[in-house]
Amino acid sequence: MANIDINCDMGEAFGNYSMPNDALLFKYISSANIACGFHAGDAGVMQDTVALAVQNNVAIGAHPGLQDLQGFGRREMKITPGEAYQITLYQIGALAAFVKAANTKLNHVKPHGALYNMAAKDLKLAQAIADAIYDIDPDLILYGLAGSELINAATNKGLKSAGEVFADRTYQDDGSLTPRSQTNALITNENAAAAQVLMMVNKQQVISVNQKIVSLNADTLCIHGDGEHAVAFAKTIHHTLTNNGIPIKALSN
Amino acid sequence: MANIDINCDMGEAFGNYSMPNDALLFKYISSANIACGFHAGDAGVMQDTVALAVQNNVAIGAHPGLQDLQGFGRREMKITPGEAYQITLYQIGALAAFVKAANTKLNHVKPHGALYNMAAKDLKLAQAIADAIYDIDPDLILYGLAGSELINAATNKGLKSAGEVFADRTYQDDGSLTPRSQTNALITNENAAAAQVLMMVNKQQVISVNQKIVSLNADTLCIHGDGEHAVAFAKTIHHTLTNNGIPIKALSN
Amino acid sequence: MANIDINCDMGEAFGNYSMPNDALLFKYISSANIACGFHAGDAGVMQDTVALAVQNNVAIGAHPGLQDLQGFGRREMKITPGEAYQITLYQIGALAAFVKAANTKLNHVKPHGALYNMAAKDLKLAQAIADAIYDIDPDLILYGLAGSELINAATNKGLKSAGEVFADRTYQDDGSLTPRSQTNALITNENAAAAQVLMMVNKQQVISVNQKIVSLNADTLCIHGDGEHAVAFAKTIHHTLTNNGIPIKALSN
Amino acid sequence: MANIDINCDMGEAFGNYSMPNDALLFKYISSANIACGFHAGDAGVMQDTVALAVQNNVAIGAHPGLQDLQGFGRREMKITPGEAYQITLYQIGALAAFVKAANTKLNHVKPHGALYNMAAKDLKLAQAIADAIYDIDPDLILYGLAGSELINAATNKGLKSAGEVFADRTYQDDGSLTPRSQTNALITNENAAAAQVLMMVNKQQVISVNQKIVSLNADTLCIHGDGEHAVAFAKTIHHTLTNNGIPIKALSN
Repeated sequence: MANIDINCDMGEAFGNYSMPNDALLFKYISSANIACGFHAGDAGVMQDTVALAVQNNVAIGAHPGLQDLQGFGRREMKITPGEAYQITLYQIGALAAFVKAANTKLNHVKPHGALYNMAAKDLKLAQAIADAIYDIDPDLILYGLAGSELINAATNKGLKSAGEVFADRTYQDDGSLTPRSQTNALITNENAAAAQVLMMVNKQQVISVNQKIVSLNADTLCIHGDGEHAVAFAKTIHHTLTNNGIPIKALSN
Repeated sequence: MANIDINCDMGEAFGNYSMPNDALLFKYISSANIACGFHAGDAGVMQDTVALAVQNNVAIGAHPGLQDLQGFGRREMKITPGEAYQITLYQIGALAAFVKAANTKLNHVKPHGALYNMAAKDLKLAQAIADAIYDIDPDLILYGLAGSELINAATNKGLKSAGEVFADRTYQDDGSLTPRSQTNALITNENAAAAQVLMMVNKQQVISVNQKIVSLNADTLCIHGDGEHAVAFAKTIHHTLTNNGIPIKALSN
Repeated sequence: MANIDINCDMGEAFGNYSMPNDALLFKYISSANIACGFHAGDAGVMQDTVALAVQNNVAIGAHPGLQDLQGFGRREMKITPGEAYQITLYQIGALAAFVKAANTKLNHVKPHGALYNMAAKDLKLAQAIADAIYDIDPDLILYGLAGSELINAATNKGLKSAGEVFADRTYQDDGSLTPRSQTNALITNENAAAAQVLMMVNKQQVISVNQKIVSLNADTLCIHGDGEHAVAFAKTIHHTLTNNGIPIKALSN
Repeated sequence: MANIDINCDMGEAFGNYSMPNDALLFKYISSANIACGFHAGDAGVMQDTVALAVQNNVAIGAHPGLQDLQGFGRREMKITPGEAYQITLYQIGALAAFVKAANTKLNHVKPHGALYNMAAKDLKLAQAIADAIYDIDPDLILYGLAGSELINAATNKGLKSAGEVFADRTYQDDGSLTPRSQTNALITNENAAAAQVLMMVNKQQVISVNQKIVSLNADTLCIHGDGEHAVAFAKTIHHTLTNNGIPIKALSN
């Protein structure tokens, strides 16, 4: 019987800048991807966010990004695979220290923003990220876009992986996400998003923008924590799954 | 019979800015304090410096500092004990990841610059640092100024500690270092420095600026890696100790 | 007849982190102190905030701070007067470029947070800041705590200055602010704050926490832009002044 | 009769990291491109470097770069034209403040590293940079790769421009630089470099890697300040030009 992990990027506050949704979102998710200080987050935010995850019994993942706080890690930078390895290892290590101090364990790693998107298409970057994860702890699960090079790199390295799908994004015929630059990239209707989620979880399929049925590997469902409707949206998705008898639970490493 | 650890701050390059002495200094020391990206160092430098330490069979320590790259971590900042805990834990974790990836182990932690100096005098800051070290690995050794609050904090927490002494700094009658603002703070004559080192190691004593014999606890000797004579100085201290039959070896955790 | 300037710190967003109150507050103030990228703000935020100031016909000031984004410039750092000069000059210059590009002019400079507080008590730091202001434009007005060394430094240098008073802070018998560490530091009752403002503006006096009448030099009134009640508070102060026939207008350089 | 400007990137030290060649190079150049704190440089270095330029009677230019200190501004980042405008304006303004404080004037702007290279090929980025320069001071000269979109953007905007050529780089048949990834990208022989420079200055031509004579617009010659032979190389180029009766002088805005 199907079950699903719901993950959300967390701990993306910084210094004086708070992310008030974080505390509210924890009850609707099973996995938290915690920012590690490069694209967002700082040592204090990391400590607080790990504590929230522990309180809510949510699995903890590292969420390493490019070192571009001003761009929130969303601007592509031409980094080498060696640099991708180094910044991934650094950030996982930093978060792992807070996880250790909280007497819990690190479960997974999900690259952030431009690092995630670049590695989804570039096997060398993806392999560098997989290498970093493996070198710090071969039991960690690599979260990546379903069907992407991140998943391939995990498989090559012998890491567990989780194919990620999105509740509020539309898909192309080839299973890729519709680029945000296109007007139909986002699903803003909650019911439509909920229907897409149910199909993804129950059938491992999605209906593309061209009305084709496309197969994909839905191991973990990403919901977004920013935006004014984020909490309401998370609640809707959570209830839809629960009401349909689909357990929400973290992947186990 | 006496033996001594020689430690040096390493990996304080950053990006395009190199520290060419590092590779030359490794053969004269037994412990390296590796910068962790806040006051100096970056993920690439950390990887390279850990590799050099492994090649040279030198014990690896974390060297966390204040987040002030422009001031090289030397400017005091009013941080809370909570912040001291967080930045120490973050930085140790980041370095620990590179140490783990290199299949070796972390040996010690030595705070850097203003963080070291503030904590030497402020027990609450010192205890926060000791807490961070303990929470990530209670076997790590805390390096601190001999006789300072850092050593007291380690003792209170049940951590091993190492009292640090300096070859090229003069001492006051109470065992404290002569402030750098005073003209007689530094020993520039290599023979005088070597004589001070031998007395420290053999007798656990130093002659103060007022010609008094002062007891101190010399577990580890710090040499400085910057400055144009740093390598020659390190070589002199190393040979002096070796020629006097004093083994140079890292402290074991 | 009395009139008063109302100033507010603006443009303290950064990258992905917004300050939604900014656009709402502009209509209640006459002077904006715009962050310059060190403690908050970035080049994009600066451009947008200058544009808002122009649209609202609000005088533009530079709001330079310590280079501590994580601490929002609120943590004291031991910087030299030379460093205070350099970072002040740098930040004013950066903002001045956006002001020039918007075909308007820079009116004043108000140091931020710990830089403001340190310089209020340290004449050497205050003079370094006054020197930087003078060197870029001797017509700029230096905003500083009423009666503080910042005002003295401006006078010494031949700069115009504006003594700043606070609507929502209590005062000691000597005219200094009650430290935030004390429980009675803040005035949370809007009516009490409004009454304090009227007395400050009309009589250049304030009633201290010990119920003494204290004289002070109220050239500009600071309101705070953060906090959930900031906009309502600004509106109340603005209406109180207007209803009492006191014009709100910027100081002219 | 021909004359030529020699420009060099200067002030690329940062905090504790020095650039010892800077002081030695100033006597061989006519224009200094001074880093502005994003890819290198800080407020203290900027003040010192402006002072050195004034002492050596060298024209001062701003050298804005991407905000990537760790990558020294050499890693491409996907920024929008709006962001290019903002970071260029910010950095020019910051340097202009030090120039004003030194009672001298800003002469030109040369983008750095990846910003220079991206804008050389991307007219929209180039135009954004030209807009920023124009908005702060329409008399500034834009230095860009000879024949590139930066020069086109300056022309479109009505800015003066200077086509930049390189003493130690080889050229393709189309006048573009041989990419550094190719083995023949650099001219390491000083005599060959000197010969190329003379031909560039006297004939506005260069011999490509395929032995074709290629025309180019040599308004300013870039020499590199880093590397251990940089000072000797600068001296050789300077003497070659002087010995051939070619005046070395800055372009005038």
